[in-house]
Amino acid sequence: MTVETQTNAGSTGSVGIVAPQYYTCYEPPHELVLKSGVKLGPITLAYETYGKLNSDKSNAIMVFHTLTSDAHAAGFHQDATKPGWWDGMIGPDKAFDTHKYFVICINVLGSCKGTTGPASINPKTGKPYGLGFPFVTIEDMVITQKNLTDHLGIRKLFCAAGGSMGGLQALEWAVSYPECVESVIAIATNPRHTAQQIALHEVGRQAIMSDPDWHNGDYYGKSIPAKGLALSRMIGHITYMSDKSMDEKFGRKLIGKEKLGFDFSHDFEVESYLKYRADNFVQRFDANSYLYITKALDYFDLAEDGDLSSAFKGVKASFLVISFSSDWLYPSYQSKEMVRALKANDLDVSDCEINSSYGHDAFLVEIKGQSRLISHFLNRLHKEKLHGKR
Amino acid sequence: MTVETQTNAGSTGSVGIVAPQYYTCYEPPHELVLKSGVKLGPITLAYETYGKLNSDKSNAIMVFHTLTSDAHAAGFHQDATKPGWWDGMIGPDKAFDTHKYFVICINVLGSCKGTTGPASINPKTGKPYGLGFPFVTIEDMVITQKNLTDHLGIRKLFCAAGGSMGGLQALEWAVSYPECVESVIAIATNPRHTAQQIALHEVGRQAIMSDPDWHNGDYYGKSIPAKGLALSRMIGHITYMSDKSMDEKFGRKLIGKEKLGFDFSHDFEVESYLKYRADNFVQRFDANSYLYITKALDYFDLAEDGDLSSAFKGVKASFLVISFSSDWLYPSYQSKEMVRALKANDLDVSDCEINSSYGHDAFLVEIKGQSRLISHFLNRLHKEKLHGKR
Repeated sequence: MTVETQTNAGSTGSVGIVAPQYYTCYEPPHELVLKSGVKLGPITLAYETYGKLNSDKSNAIMVFHTLTSDAHAAGFHQDATKPGWWDGMIGPDKAFDTHKYFVICINVLGSCKGTTGPASINPKTGKPYGLGFPFVTIEDMVITQKNLTDHLGIRKLFCAAGGSMGGLQALEWAVSYPECVESVIAIATNPRHTAQQIALHEVGRQAIMSDPDWHNGDYYGKSIPAKGLALSRMIGHITYMSDKSMDEKFGRKLIGKEKLGFDFSHDFEVESYLKYRADNFVQRFDANSYLYITKALDYFDLAEDGDLSSAFKGVKASFLVISFSSDWLYPSYQSKEMVRALKANDLDVSDCEINSSYGHDAFLVEIKGQSRLISHFLNRLHKEKLHGKR
Repeated sequence: MTVETQTNAGSTGSVGIVAPQYYTCYEPPHELVLKSGVKLGPITLAYETYGKLNSDKSNAIMVFHTLTSDAHAAGFHQDATKPGWWDGMIGPDKAFDTHKYFVICINVLGSCKGTTGPASINPKTGKPYGLGFPFVTIEDMVITQKNLTDHLGIRKLFCAAGGSMGGLQALEWAVSYPECVESVIAIATNPRHTAQQIALHEVGRQAIMSDPDWHNGDYYGKSIPAKGLALSRMIGHITYMSDKSMDEKFGRKLIGKEKLGFDFSHDFEVESYLKYRADNFVQRFDANSYLYITKALDYFDLAEDGDLSSAFKGVKASFLVISFSSDWLYPSYQSKEMVRALKANDLDVSDCEINSSYGHDAFLVEIKGQSRLISHFLNRLHKEKLHGKR
């Protein structure tokens, strides 16, 4: 197991220069039997680690990324100016303190950031999988993640933590592997996708599949379905912000003109911002991965029999549940429902709704508020463990 | 002026069988100078009326429709089984009581339901306007509506009433023609479009304009941009409902299958519902009208100098402002801001937030709650008028 060398750590609070690592599992003759029943292998996982695994391998924290993110959660890639997506939270003396913890982040199965997904080469055909890639679920993603911790010799995660889709994975760890998770931090997330969440994803999927360049998923090496993918990103962006944060950031500010244009070009800053973000996104994300991962999200339902309390039966972890007041994609009431179901199982649960105008994006932005809660939570568990109370 | 004959009225509370009427204004050599400075004419308005105009023409109420609706607000078209879009509110003994009032509804300028719009024939070319149609604003729409009331000999509307985009028109009437509006009922609406509202529309516009069948608006007589228009309607539908109403109506119910399909066809009822509604919509609405009218909405800002209070300076009408607790497209706080600005002008304002899970659609659904408020408001004004207090 390679532990990334920490340059610059401590002095700036950054984990410094990092690089992705790769682990390939389910190599022939083995294959992973997915939830759908379809088999898949080999599977390569791209991941990064920050901090040092201790001698008894008891200090590992896995953080999980969102729909369109990747394994690069903290520090800087060589020559990069932008840090990982949760750099404010992971590093020396930060919420996930790399002086104490060994933090792992894995790119999810089905993505396009180093882990096997629809854009990967299917060894059986020598061509990209495209729609030949099997359906994957959050459960399947977690199985591959467990495979990596087994490989690293980690028997139990000290914590499984994530926001949005990352929260779903953290919850799934607690349910799938109750003996292997000491604690869960579930942020801006919920235990089953609702009709509105499904509907918003479905519009994004239809936008991609309506793009003539999609070609039923077989567009690799040709024109990509850029317009469809851009549309789905525009919708996504709106759902990640709040009415208030959009008003504060853009209001009705005009772009590059003093008066309304009376044509169909952009008038308002919010319009050109959405286009800018969408065009950027199209360069960095695979449309088929967007289809597969949104389906995995929509399929997620910890309470398939309808009863959320029974979904958490057998779970042993301690929980910290965080939500944000202006998050309308994963509203606070959904976190509160989950907290009730966890408490109904006599679990140790802390929960907090943070007042924020940043909407769903708050889990990436509200570093200070989250850090205080997370540090306190992890320190308490750490102490309880030291004193044999866990 | 034709007053529609009321069949069946009173017995069922319906205005009975109705038919659209047409009025053409700005005929050569006249043209309407639009807010953009561009001239347009002739302009045909499609409209319907219910009830009887009294001898002094003081009992006229204009109701205004939404983005994709039309002049058919009440009663039934010959052989139709579905009544007008606000039939629950308009009729004998209903909120807009046709025993007392003469109700008018006009299809807005730029639409495709009988009034001149981008699908209409441009008399100068003999072909549909397409993108040759000039930009129209809510102000322009209201100017054409005023033209019709002048034609009908109505000097003052007893009430201007509408929800959503209909509310914008009602507000614009009060600001543009303060002497000509006795009262305004503004429901689920706001006095200036916000960044989020603009952003949601922009995704819909981009969806249409990204459709290869759009052909820069020149698709009449060819394939219509059905996929793009369907996408914009899907987004619209999600914004018209609430998280809660979608959960109550659909939850995670599967459609036509007992298990998840593990493919990209529809799994959930909410997905097929959106498709069904979108496919229906594509048959009945013109994509270019969608572009023009959403732009008119986004351009709407009663407080162009930033100060909402001064926007209502000079306004004389009495106001009833209604909002709905679960409406996230035009949230209650926006109505409340407007109420404060109206009150700052010492205007007579009643306001109410109705508790409802139906989201923005509530103004079409919550008939009972709205009727009580509206009847009370109109009766009070009517009495005050009778007693010379107005």
